[in-house]
Amino acid sequence: MAETKHVYRFGADASGKDVTEGASKMNFILGGKGANLAEMARIGLPVPPGFTITCQTCVQYSSAGNVWGAGVLDEIHAARLDLEQRMGKKLGDNEDPLLVSVRSGAPFSMPGMMDTVLNLGLNDVSVQGLINQTKNERFSWDSYRRFVQMFSNVVMGVDADLFENAITSRKLMKGVKSDTDLTSDDLKALVDEFKEIFSKNVDGTQHPEIVVDGKVTFPEDPYVQLKLAIEAVFGSWNNERAILYRKQNKISDDLGTAVNVQVMVFGNKGDTSATGVAFTRNPATGEKEYYGDFLVNAQGEDVVAGIRNTQPIADLKKTPGLEEAGQQLEDIFVTLEKHYRDMMDIEFTIEQSKLWMLQTRVGKRTAASALKCAIDMEKEGFISKEEAVCRVNPAQLDQLLHPQLDPKAKLDVLATGLNASPGAAVGAIVFSSADAVASAEAGKPCILVRWETNPDDLKGMVAAEGILTSHGGKTSHAAVIARGMGAPCVCGVEALKIDASKKEAKVSGTDVVLHEGDVITIDGTTGRVVLGSVGLVRPELTGDLETILDWADEIRNDPNRGRVIGVRANADNPADADLSREFGAEGIGLCRTEHMFLGDRKHIIQDYILADDEDTKKRALSELLEAQTGDFLGMFKAMDSRVVIVRLLDPPLHEFLDNPRDLAIEIAVAEAKGASEAELADKRKLLAEIDSMTEANPMLGLRGCRLGIVYPELTDMQIRAIATATAELKKQGLFPMPEIMIPLVSTANELKFLREQVEADIKEIADKYGLELDIPIGTMIELPRAAVTSEEIGKYADFYSFGTNDLTQTTFGFSRDDVESAFIPTYLRKKILPVNPFETIDDGVCKLVKMGVDGGRKANARLQAGVCGEHGGDPDSIFKFYDLGLDYVSCSPYRVPVARLTACQAKIKANGSMAMADK
Amino acid sequence: MAETKHVYRFGADASGKDVTEGASKMNFILGGKGANLAEMARIGLPVPPGFTITCQTCVQYSSAGNVWGAGVLDEIHAARLDLEQRMGKKLGDNEDPLLVSVRSGAPFSMPGMMDTVLNLGLNDVSVQGLINQTKNERFSWDSYRRFVQMFSNVVMGVDADLFENAITSRKLMKGVKSDTDLTSDDLKALVDEFKEIFSKNVDGTQHPEIVVDGKVTFPEDPYVQLKLAIEAVFGSWNNERAILYRKQNKISDDLGTAVNVQVMVFGNKGDTSATGVAFTRNPATGEKEYYGDFLVNAQGEDVVAGIRNTQPIADLKKTPGLEEAGQQLEDIFVTLEKHYRDMMDIEFTIEQSKLWMLQTRVGKRTAASALKCAIDMEKEGFISKEEAVCRVNPAQLDQLLHPQLDPKAKLDVLATGLNASPGAAVGAIVFSSADAVASAEAGKPCILVRWETNPDDLKGMVAAEGILTSHGGKTSHAAVIARGMGAPCVCGVEALKIDASKKEAKVSGTDVVLHEGDVITIDGTTGRVVLGSVGLVRPELTGDLETILDWADEIRNDPNRGRVIGVRANADNPADADLSREFGAEGIGLCRTEHMFLGDRKHIIQDYILADDEDTKKRALSELLEAQTGDFLGMFKAMDSRVVIVRLLDPPLHEFLDNPRDLAIEIAVAEAKGASEAELADKRKLLAEIDSMTEANPMLGLRGCRLGIVYPELTDMQIRAIATATAELKKQGLFPMPEIMIPLVSTANELKFLREQVEADIKEIADKYGLELDIPIGTMIELPRAAVTSEEIGKYADFYSFGTNDLTQTTFGFSRDDVESAFIPTYLRKKILPVNPFETIDDGVCKLVKMGVDGGRKANARLQAGVCGEHGGDPDSIFKFYDLGLDYVSCSPYRVPVARLTACQAKIKANGSMAMADK
Repeated sequence: MAETKHVYRFGADASGKDVTEGASKMNFILGGKGANLAEMARIGLPVPPGFTITCQTCVQYSSAGNVWGAGVLDEIHAARLDLEQRMGKKLGDNEDPLLVSVRSGAPFSMPGMMDTVLNLGLNDVSVQGLINQTKNERFSWDSYRRFVQMFSNVVMGVDADLFENAITSRKLMKGVKSDTDLTSDDLKALVDEFKEIFSKNVDGTQHPEIVVDGKVTFPEDPYVQLKLAIEAVFGSWNNERAILYRKQNKISDDLGTAVNVQVMVFGNKGDTSATGVAFTRNPATGEKEYYGDFLVNAQGEDVVAGIRNTQPIADLKKTPGLEEAGQQLEDIFVTLEKHYRDMMDIEFTIEQSKLWMLQTRVGKRTAASALKCAIDMEKEGFISKEEAVCRVNPAQLDQLLHPQLDPKAKLDVLATGLNASPGAAVGAIVFSSADAVASAEAGKPCILVRWETNPDDLKGMVAAEGILTSHGGKTSHAAVIARGMGAPCVCGVEALKIDASKKEAKVSGTDVVLHEGDVITIDGTTGRVVLGSVGLVRPELTGDLETILDWADEIRNDPNRGRVIGVRANADNPADADLSREFGAEGIGLCRTEHMFLGDRKHIIQDYILADDEDTKKRALSELLEAQTGDFLGMFKAMDSRVVIVRLLDPPLHEFLDNPRDLAIEIAVAEAKGASEAELADKRKLLAEIDSMTEANPMLGLRGCRLGIVYPELTDMQIRAIATATAELKKQGLFPMPEIMIPLVSTANELKFLREQVEADIKEIADKYGLELDIPIGTMIELPRAAVTSEEIGKYADFYSFGTNDLTQTTFGFSRDDVESAFIPTYLRKKILPVNPFETIDDGVCKLVKMGVDGGRKANARLQAGVCGEHGGDPDSIFKFYDLGLDYVSCSPYRVPVARLTACQAKIKANGSMAMADK
Repeated sequence: MAETKHVYRFGADASGKDVTEGASKMNFILGGKGANLAEMARIGLPVPPGFTITCQTCVQYSSAGNVWGAGVLDEIHAARLDLEQRMGKKLGDNEDPLLVSVRSGAPFSMPGMMDTVLNLGLNDVSVQGLINQTKNERFSWDSYRRFVQMFSNVVMGVDADLFENAITSRKLMKGVKSDTDLTSDDLKALVDEFKEIFSKNVDGTQHPEIVVDGKVTFPEDPYVQLKLAIEAVFGSWNNERAILYRKQNKISDDLGTAVNVQVMVFGNKGDTSATGVAFTRNPATGEKEYYGDFLVNAQGEDVVAGIRNTQPIADLKKTPGLEEAGQQLEDIFVTLEKHYRDMMDIEFTIEQSKLWMLQTRVGKRTAASALKCAIDMEKEGFISKEEAVCRVNPAQLDQLLHPQLDPKAKLDVLATGLNASPGAAVGAIVFSSADAVASAEAGKPCILVRWETNPDDLKGMVAAEGILTSHGGKTSHAAVIARGMGAPCVCGVEALKIDASKKEAKVSGTDVVLHEGDVITIDGTTGRVVLGSVGLVRPELTGDLETILDWADEIRNDPNRGRVIGVRANADNPADADLSREFGAEGIGLCRTEHMFLGDRKHIIQDYILADDEDTKKRALSELLEAQTGDFLGMFKAMDSRVVIVRLLDPPLHEFLDNPRDLAIEIAVAEAKGASEAELADKRKLLAEIDSMTEANPMLGLRGCRLGIVYPELTDMQIRAIATATAELKKQGLFPMPEIMIPLVSTANELKFLREQVEADIKEIADKYGLELDIPIGTMIELPRAAVTSEEIGKYADFYSFGTNDLTQTTFGFSRDDVESAFIPTYLRKKILPVNPFETIDDGVCKLVKMGVDGGRKANARLQAGVCGEHGGDPDSIFKFYDLGLDYVSCSPYRVPVARLTACQAKIKANGSMAMADK
């Protein structure tokens, strides 16, 4: 086995010949920074020479309990000697000392999360060499002072305040205000003071190499400095904020960070020196313009710290002494874009008129900028359309589709919950669905505040601007419905203690009591709840979004570029159907009918459920038939010539009934107050009825196709409504395309049984109208048994829709609403789950989806298979769905653009059809 | 393709040479009766010649809508001509007519379910031939009369009463009492009358062949008679009672029945004629003795009808004129047993001293007889031990293990429910667990009557003789616990309307109101509820049972005869553990610990759950630690040197808390009655706490290993208790063999995480005692995700136990208690489910079990895999489990003998190691 290489050189040798060993593709070995330094050096850009210690070295060092592997330190030592030879300078030299920076650089950017040490190599000897070279005593001592301070704090963990205090004391003593007023001697004295602070505050038992004659001493040996600095950078991979950052950004903990040891260049060597950061295009708008700032006679930190006013990068060329470097930088912008074929973010330093490139990486950008850059670069011929659509982050796209808090507004954040449905909303608090409706009718925007919502709250949710709950997770009823409606929603705000009966809510940890009518603003994008009204902005939907989505559709629907994948929407009413079309949905993948039984119609279904006599039941059914037929007429008309998959009634019937606990309390209280048995008889009977229908685990109870089998007349009614609406529209010359979906099938026999009934009902209506009605019949695959026996079920299905919400629930044995607050947060914290499986589809659930798809296609080669769970709008999940071979995804209307883009990206990735950056 | 043969001959030809074409193995083609008639003819026994029309012909005819396939009737016609040639007689002949019987005969015995026609071939001409042959005019006309009556009723569906009325009228007219007093002329006149009845009551449009000159006429043509009779037998396969019988006996509807057309022999031709039925051994006791009855000068129906007193078969030899036939019959008994190597049931007729065998089949027998026959035949050298154990039906065995209603008792059945746990019990009604305990303490046997039971009722359930519920299915809490305890239980008696507060129950559809103290008897074997006290019997457990189970164990545990499969018991306390050992369990496959938190200890776990302060929580935990350590000491001691798998706490914690609805009512009522807020504060707080823990779907909530992860201190406490008990017993020189089972794992990470903690806790105790504690750690596979990701989970498991109850729930999305009453009965009735998947494991669930076993073994080749769900005691399921490669099954103690026997049979079947009946 070849010995593992731990250190890679970059930059030129003494003869000016490039000796770079790395390249940009090696970012999992060299980290992003190291890989791009190597790449820049390789293509002839001016990069200060140095070497990179690999990420794998970090992993090895950490997992061995912070112990160096055999030979690694020798390799580093050799690289240091090589660098000294290449530069013709030595670390710690008293004539012309070499100084280096030691910087972290992980495979994915983790800005500011890990450690950096500058000016390494300075000591009591080499500071004289630096003075000798620069002829600038103050600069040299200041550099030394900065190094001791940085090393002590960053590498040895000494409290930064101790050093700041020492500086402040000295300024007081000298009666000056600014650091720059301190003289060389002051700085020299500070170096001594800092070393004393070091000696007093560092634990020598951990670092025997800094103990001299039994006393902890600031290390003079540059090699000790270097070793300790590298160890510190490695250690910073596992500091708390880095771990948190990785968790938030879904970066694996197993990657490790590289360490870049690079020759220092100084932007603070006078007026022909400068330092700056820039983007090759505008990262906010995407405009093709030089974008960035520089400071003359400054170090990198100064630009970022924002202490001095920076100058726009366009001025660099016009600055005396920097003209040439400025022009060179502009040329480099072009070179970089051409080479990387993307908008780049760079850092540079000009040391005495000589330009040095310190970093480059693909520039972060806003959604709007991402769109514009992608489109422009395609037009400029840099990239293909495939690459252009892959340049836009689907998650970012979501931002463009909802109103946001004005970024300039000052916020009085009251509490924070889960960012359950994106967008912001302002309104007066209401505590009940009825009040929300009343408020909306009175023209007063409101926010519905509930402990949790249930199907009864639907009208209020529609009426309100946004929804706020104190309970429930990201897939709670409130969250799911809100996302479906595109309404902003903040869920699970635990600090909120709601007393709906008093129409007030206390905020834990504050004195605030919110009352009905108080105006609040909620931000469903971040989960913030703000007191008062905050200005909202809807980012301009430029034509760029449309262009990119058009390109995405073109690629996605092109059978010559790989398997086509469709995008449909979940919509239950004509308004949502219209919205879906606007957002580019190619059909309705899920039209839930249960909402058609609520509101004004709730009493009808209640009559049906509770009636003792057949007449009442029949009357209720015929009322429902009429109402549903009307609903479907509207729906199919809105989606004329496009598929509308109607799911038959799914929830358990007791969801349509009153809450038995409330009723039981009502009866007990009335009884206590002396009501007679006769007065209570009806209510008691009702309660007994409701109790008899109540289920211990309604999720696993009498619902879905089971309802249709136990109550065949309910099935007949629904099918007649669908078929009648279809026939009526056909008569009018339209092209309705309904499909009937039978939910919660667990065995082939259920589907066979219902299919026969459904076909008979359709035929009955078709015959009545004298028409052919060709309505496909399919099923939801949302139970593990359906997935594993899919080869049998497929015989009776024209299509499958994977109901991944329910499938996740039964596969894991997780009840969404129960477990999201009860233990999923704990599981995520303890890394038992990598992601919330209700947000991004789990690999175990995917195995069942795969069995389902494969089995179904085996039984019926023409089977259409899609997904209509919440995951249908989640980018990470969509990538998996493409790979699983699904024909379409269906999601809430507001997520359709995201799905169109992601599905296209998934197709490009799966088919390797993208012309990649490196030819 | 060879043409399908529809008709098979049996018996001799004209020369006496056997021309039989079938054999006993062909019972799926010839039906049981036809196959055995062929077999008897083949081995030289005297069988009246005939032919059999195959079952497949019936299926073909029925599925074509009662239409004959091409050529089939020709084949039947040819067989008839062949039979006439073989007998030298013709149907309908005026000199020496051939008469035949037409009988059904399905692959599985369906006694009395389908049609038979005797004396076919008689008409106005051939009756003269019969007179000519028999010289017995009365017999001949009576035969004709019987034929017309039977044909009209059985074949053409004419109401039987019409014929009985005609006979009665004639007797009245003649002034005689008995049929036998009617003369030849009377019978001749009756034939005419019967034919008139036929003409008036048969619909000729269905049968054009019986319309002569526009009038419906009794068919004189024997071929028409034959064709119609065969069609009628085919039709009877789908009559209502036959369908019902097949459903009850799990016989496929697709088998069809064969039709046997056989030469008639007459046992009623005088005193040298006789007819009888017999068994080759005693079917009740298994004694080797001739067992059966005969009647001189009678036809078969007369024996069965029981009109005349029959004589014991032993007397046959001693009856004048029947001596020779009697001896021949005894010889045939020996021949048959030798040939079939089993106890046989036969029918015979002696016609004028000549013995004819009409039927033989393996004899039905009681469990006791089955045991004795099997053992005796092994000793007699007929069969091997493998065959002997396969001769006992495991389901029957169960009968031997529980007290039963005295079969002689007269029963006043009040209502019927589900036969949830076998055995019968007598006691006074109590309506609460507390009353059950009080009654038992007062020495008064009681039956606990509840709407449904819950863990709180456990003490009462233990105290009661039996349990009766009005709600819940065969796997409801009451049923599962009762089976586990071996207590009789009848569940889901819907007719019972319980008002526990009034301590009374009404029985719907009756005037009966049951009060506390009323004595009832319940029969958990059949589901009957009987008013008053019924005598109970415990069938003697003869040594035969022990012998067979010993043989079964010997084979089951012999690695040379195939893979060994163990049998363990589910037991939660030392008493059950003792019982398990008595019943032959090789270990405890599931020791549930939740019962250890109930009863007196319930307040401790409540303190732990509800306490605000850490001190109270800690104190509660240390009390639980002490109590549980004691439990485990008892358990491990009772099962010394045998495996005890302890499952960690599984149910959601709110199961240990009060019912929130009751508490809410209590608060509301107190408030209505004027209680102050201060008085209610504590209760309100408690209610809020309980509400916050209540789950919408507790089955899918915070339970199982999730509890152990969210509350690590609960895990520590349990492990310390197990490890301490183990260490203490080891110190005493015993060999405790606990294993720790982590429930409800869905991802490998859960198990990995808990395993680390469990190992650390064990090590802590081991170190404390200075002992090695080698306690295997495994998991339950009871969620689909665990099954499909088993290859990952297996890395962290020493053993798997498939929790098939929960796995069935999540795989199907069926909540046991909810769906068993809500729709499983409908599903079974509509044949959507072939069996209740909570009773016999479903094939879809088996697929997941297979993935689980295979994946686990891939990860860990030494993984032990068993099952501890209810299915572990179900014979049909055990067969599947053996085939899936499981190492053991675990079931309730009372089902251990059944499992020992079945597991052995499954092994024999899987390994084909049984010396089969036909060499």
